[in-house]
Amino acid sequence: MTSSPKTIALVGKYNAAGVTHSIAELASFLDDAGHTVIFEAETAQNMLLEGFHVMSAAEIGKNADAAIVLGGDGTMLGIARQLAPYNVPLIGINQGRLGFITDIPLDRTIPVITEMLEGKYVAEKRSLLQGIVVRDGNQIFSGMAFNDVVVSRGAGTGMVELRVDVDDHFMYNQRSDGLIVSTPTGSTAYALSAGGPLLHPSLNGIVMVPIAPHALSNRPIVLPDSSEIVIEIAAGRDITVNFDMQSFADLMYKDRIIVKRSEHTITFLHPQGWNYYDTLRQKLHWNEYPSVVGP
Amino acid sequence: MTSSPKTIALVGKYNAAGVTHSIAELASFLDDAGHTVIFEAETAQNMLLEGFHVMSAAEIGKNADAAIVLGGDGTMLGIARQLAPYNVPLIGINQGRLGFITDIPLDRTIPVITEMLEGKYVAEKRSLLQGIVVRDGNQIFSGMAFNDVVVSRGAGTGMVELRVDVDDHFMYNQRSDGLIVSTPTGSTAYALSAGGPLLHPSLNGIVMVPIAPHALSNRPIVLPDSSEIVIEIAAGRDITVNFDMQSFADLMYKDRIIVKRSEHTITFLHPQGWNYYDTLRQKLHWNEYPSVVGP
Amino acid sequence: MTSSPKTIALVGKYNAAGVTHSIAELASFLDDAGHTVIFEAETAQNMLLEGFHVMSAAEIGKNADAAIVLGGDGTMLGIARQLAPYNVPLIGINQGRLGFITDIPLDRTIPVITEMLEGKYVAEKRSLLQGIVVRDGNQIFSGMAFNDVVVSRGAGTGMVELRVDVDDHFMYNQRSDGLIVSTPTGSTAYALSAGGPLLHPSLNGIVMVPIAPHALSNRPIVLPDSSEIVIEIAAGRDITVNFDMQSFADLMYKDRIIVKRSEHTITFLHPQGWNYYDTLRQKLHWNEYPSVVGP
Amino acid sequence: MTSSPKTIALVGKYNAAGVTHSIAELASFLDDAGHTVIFEAETAQNMLLEGFHVMSAAEIGKNADAAIVLGGDGTMLGIARQLAPYNVPLIGINQGRLGFITDIPLDRTIPVITEMLEGKYVAEKRSLLQGIVVRDGNQIFSGMAFNDVVVSRGAGTGMVELRVDVDDHFMYNQRSDGLIVSTPTGSTAYALSAGGPLLHPSLNGIVMVPIAPHALSNRPIVLPDSSEIVIEIAAGRDITVNFDMQSFADLMYKDRIIVKRSEHTITFLHPQGWNYYDTLRQKLHWNEYPSVVGP
Repeated sequence: MTSSPKTIALVGKYNAAGVTHSIAELASFLDDAGHTVIFEAETAQNMLLEGFHVMSAAEIGKNADAAIVLGGDGTMLGIARQLAPYNVPLIGINQGRLGFITDIPLDRTIPVITEMLEGKYVAEKRSLLQGIVVRDGNQIFSGMAFNDVVVSRGAGTGMVELRVDVDDHFMYNQRSDGLIVSTPTGSTAYALSAGGPLLHPSLNGIVMVPIAPHALSNRPIVLPDSSEIVIEIAAGRDITVNFDMQSFADLMYKDRIIVKRSEHTITFLHPQGWNYYDTLRQKLHWNEYPSVVGP
Repeated sequence: MTSSPKTIALVGKYNAAGVTHSIAELASFLDDAGHTVIFEAETAQNMLLEGFHVMSAAEIGKNADAAIVLGGDGTMLGIARQLAPYNVPLIGINQGRLGFITDIPLDRTIPVITEMLEGKYVAEKRSLLQGIVVRDGNQIFSGMAFNDVVVSRGAGTGMVELRVDVDDHFMYNQRSDGLIVSTPTGSTAYALSAGGPLLHPSLNGIVMVPIAPHALSNRPIVLPDSSEIVIEIAAGRDITVNFDMQSFADLMYKDRIIVKRSEHTITFLHPQGWNYYDTLRQKLHWNEYPSVVGP
Repeated sequence: MTSSPKTIALVGKYNAAGVTHSIAELASFLDDAGHTVIFEAETAQNMLLEGFHVMSAAEIGKNADAAIVLGGDGTMLGIARQLAPYNVPLIGINQGRLGFITDIPLDRTIPVITEMLEGKYVAEKRSLLQGIVVRDGNQIFSGMAFNDVVVSRGAGTGMVELRVDVDDHFMYNQRSDGLIVSTPTGSTAYALSAGGPLLHPSLNGIVMVPIAPHALSNRPIVLPDSSEIVIEIAAGRDITVNFDMQSFADLMYKDRIIVKRSEHTITFLHPQGWNYYDTLRQKLHWNEYPSVVGP
Repeated sequence: MTSSPKTIALVGKYNAAGVTHSIAELASFLDDAGHTVIFEAETAQNMLLEGFHVMSAAEIGKNADAAIVLGGDGTMLGIARQLAPYNVPLIGINQGRLGFITDIPLDRTIPVITEMLEGKYVAEKRSLLQGIVVRDGNQIFSGMAFNDVVVSRGAGTGMVELRVDVDDHFMYNQRSDGLIVSTPTGSTAYALSAGGPLLHPSLNGIVMVPIAPHALSNRPIVLPDSSEIVIEIAAGRDITVNFDMQSFADLMYKDRIIVKRSEHTITFLHPQGWNYYDTLRQKLHWNEYPSVVGP
């Protein structure tokens, strides 16, 4: 963020009437403070707000000096992926329990934003993945993922067999329900549910987490984020690849999904004093021990 | 098995030309030894064998004193579920690597079967699950499972939320990829891949294993097999329930899957000296340590 | 518990001044209600109470119709093991967060106990383990465990190798930090931390959970509780066996630990409406999802 | 390795008579080929070899252009840590099953070494950890670890509670059997047994793996290897810290173990065509599926 961001975009949770009032209030506050306020188009439409600039995500990317997102981690995830090519820093306000990446409580919005606009913030860069699907030598799909790229089988269709190569070396054939390729940001999401480790956001790494693998020695593996991962469909039916929320279904035998780190990054701005470990500790209830029976 | 089984059914792997010769040889051997040999209908059709009785699984159930299955664990699984109501003991011959439940190597068929027909065998009972799907108070599907009943989401469709009650008590709402309800036999199959424990076949237990659960404290739980488990669809799309290989798709909001131990059991006959722990040790490579780096 | 328990023993947490007042109050209440109140000797000594009968655990076992325990799960665990031979039902009052086996909140003591003494309770049986250590054919130690029997290596001494036989059959040689043999009650304690499944208290099962095993296929296994488990020290130094809180150290090469279900059981009395799944759900925070990033 | 290494050190497995002949043969071969051969002192002593230079590890570090290690991963681990400050590249020959870091089979020694001395090799850098123990502000121990630094409790002494700070930020209080801080090299050792992920050797990361943690959400976490990790003893008895094979016992309340990446690295030389994924696949038996029952 430039030391004095002039133009600020506001993005709200999809269809969440609950944040309308808060966004309007924030918009007025910013307007009064001399900033140019832009509303993301869908947000504006949902809120029936008038008197502000309205832009698409791409236009926001070109024009805004910063974007403030009100909602939850899902809202942030969606807009972050769209703004990634434009290098617009993001600030996250959470209307419910704090999220992993939306760390300002709604009722503290104005005082915290005030401080942050004065330059009191912690900036943090996050990596993304980009991937393509190749069939018979032709690219038939491409996508970007802030959390993860997931190749998985359909329900009730047995297992999938995937051949994985990394940097042009054969790694393994894996039979499983699927395979998650995750950024550090995604390591607290689906990858965690499937048994993956946490990755600190500043680690230059990508984690591959098998989902219910047949081979019991098939464990999560963390690769340098310079790696190019190629996943080839070796067997299975109704297989889908998912880039965060965008699905590409109907993968076929011999289709290849090629995943690597995106050239883009996302910058989050956190309130001063923010620390990743505090977020982990709170979200994962690390200090609430199930009181085990006995000593 | 009666001390001298008169009528013996033969069942071969579906479409596996590889066992035709072995089955024919076994049939001749049994015929010569004075047994009445029955071929399972599909097996007979695949093998183009003539001169033997051919019966459906149900007829075999009513007429055979024992059934010998040539193939792999999958073949055994399929016929066992069909014969479960009839109490016909099963003998498993495996054409490849030994299975969990097909424990006679193909090249030892005649000598081992000879001994077993003389009464030298270990009999072992296995439990099954039965389940129904209820919609709006009406039963719309019923099935039997020798391995497991699995409720799971479709590929690329987010998570499923399931409400689980056991013996009329609320257990939890679980968000995950799905839930496996498994017999001891199934505990070495999908349930194991998803992180479940092994259950000794003689344990009177059923294990519930969540698949990639959101809550990290959501661990496998072993219930007495007198339990009635009710799984209700609380949220999610494209949800399927699977009884071993039979799928019932298109589960809807509020549909309930009710699972309990079947009144039937399956009896396996193993060669003398067989022991479950030997099978586990071999199949799970328990004594082949990954040679870790270091002391 | 007999329909009207005449003699009631009171047991308090060791050295916990915090429960003195509550125990005194409960004692007066029971006395007024016409019950004979006995104090466990250590409890009485800690509390400097006078005017009540004082007995050892063994005497309580012979004389009391029920025992009420104030403290936490650890307190309950200790007294339960001592009273196991005498079949005295136990009621648990917890001064802090509810425990797995102490389920009456301290501030509800009098009204809940009043109801329970009127016969409004849920009785539940729990199993225990008994074990002996055999060296050169001689028994050199014996113990009882309500949670678990744990064989483990010393700190900084590499791994231990254990040979495990069940019902006189060789199971495996296991290299690890140790092995936990746990009752259903213990399945929520150390066994859970080490990756074991939950076992419903009414399951007739024992779970063996390896601690950090070298072989990645070395998974927890649930056995019928009729099993006799023999663990032999095959390699390692500074090895200890632990029966709940009683340690026997200095195990030597070829020592054998023999574990099976105790002939005794423990009866817990819970307030009416109590259900095991409610306890699990609360203690394991099953319905508090870490809000994952994304959909 | 310089393009033509003149002076080559030979290191053999401690007390392993089995490699004497092979080492002698290799020494003669190298001598004939015009290299100066140095024997590591202990190796020479065990082998009663004469006619070669004998040096300590430190002297080897200063004089050798490369070192060849015959034994297993443990032998390599020991000498690598000693040679780390001197930047001598290491070649590993394994007398048994191939190791993770000793990848030349004994019976292929001469032809493979011949090729490698001609410059046909793959060089690979590995990181190490260095750590110190601080008590009352004074450093009382320091050590280096190629695999891992492990803080753990004694056998039969309940749990340990550790307070962990990373880069001067509080991370958590952890109750467990202990905590493993591991390099990528160590990620296939103890850390893997305790449930940790694999880390590619070229990842700039350190993984922290809790051992049997009380909090079920306490998962392995991968940090950038620029991190400084401080582990403080918050509770527990008989606590030990282990740097690979060197133990420092009798840690006390408030002692702090400070761990970070060492300034040194180790260079391994592998035969041409070597690839890390091949090693993983073989060592972890990735392509040998336990043949699950069913489809």
